Amino acid sequence: MPPARPVTSDRLLRAGLGVIHAQGYAAAGVQEITAAAGVPKGSFYNHFPSKAAFGLAVLDAYWKAAEPALALLAEPGREAPERLERHFRAIQAGMRVAGQERGCLIGNFAVEAPAAGPEIRDRVAALLAEWTAAVAACLRAGADAGAIRTDVSPEDLAQLLVAAWQGAVQRAKVEPSAAAFDAFHRAVGRLVRP
Amino acid sequence: MPPARPVTSDRLLRAGLGVIHAQGYAAAGVQEITAAAGVPKGSFYNHFPSKAAFGLAVLDAYWKAAEPALALLAEPGREAPERLERHFRAIQAGMRVAGQERGCLIGNFAVEAPAAGPEIRDRVAALLAEWTAAVAACLRAGADAGAIRTDVSPEDLAQLLVAAWQGAVQRAKVEPSAAAFDAFHRAVGRLVRP
Repeated sequence: MPPARPVTSDRLLRAGLGVIHAQGYAAAGVQEITAAAGVPKGSFYNHFPSKAAFGLAVLDAYWKAAEPALALLAEPGREAPERLERHFRAIQAGMRVAGQERGCLIGNFAVEAPAAGPEIRDRVAALLAEWTAAVAACLRAGADAGAIRTDVSPEDLAQLLVAAWQGAVQRAKVEPSAAAFDAFHRAVGRLVRP
Repeated sequence: MPPARPVTSDRLLRAGLGVIHAQGYAAAGVQEITAAAGVPKGSFYNHFPSKAAFGLAVLDAYWKAAEPALALLAEPGREAPERLERHFRAIQAGMRVAGQERGCLIGNFAVEAPAAGPEIRDRVAALLAEWTAAVAACLRAGADAGAIRTDVSPEDLAQLLVAAWQGAVQRAKVEPSAAAFDAFHRAVGRLVRP
């Protein structure tokens, strides 16, 4: 027989990610999360010492799900501009599945971070920094290969691209079309080249 | 004697803008807003038929306060790259006053829009479109004058700049420094030129 604890913990994480992604962290109550997971309310605190600890685990689960998209930033046999486009299109495809109006969970948490407390804020900052570093590494390799402009540092360009993506995601929450993403892809395809 | 209604309405708007900016739209209760305004709770619905109507009025008040920054996009005697930088630096200065961790009220509303209802969502989309159009007009004038690149359409470039700004604002909510804005200004100063 499989141990009960990890199963309940997994169910809470999966259900909680959906509830928080749809409604926001502050609005997602423990009762609603346990109900969505189909587990007794009391079991929540057997698995997570606090709602903040749960929020961190949800953020980490979301980040882990983005690993395949992140790997595209270092895909062998492709130049940096193509790697970048495939990276952002993979994220976009994931968002179509989850529901474009839900946006990016990391960006949503960033907006709620001041009220959500310092642990959440620092984890969101760390994930954004990790993502930016992966994009910067892609840009640096591309600059070395002559496929990416060098008059802007890879770090600044990476920050701009990640920020522009998050802004496009924000806009796509209020515009039910792919227009914000389409404009992003068209502009970035030109702007990053030498 | 001045009429009482506009005064109360103004106090509600000013106080409500502060409460919603700090806590978010969903978390800001009518009771808290009236308490912050120092008016009786019952008076809220004398001035605003619903919380959504109040949210729209708060958005419009925030947008109106951005008029001086928007005017910088068409400032006489300056080239487009300088207009853009002065525009975004003016917004940044306003955010330093309000508190960088509060972010942009329009961006915050965008993230909450799916739960806040279609009126809020459509108003946020309209304000983002209006802002983007003003940036695009600045870029188009700059392109005609040879100061802005022409291989990306002014509309796409404007969308990218506004999105990158909103993403930088989001990041600045979790990083207590001006690093996200500094990277934005450095990169944009290069990227928009021919």
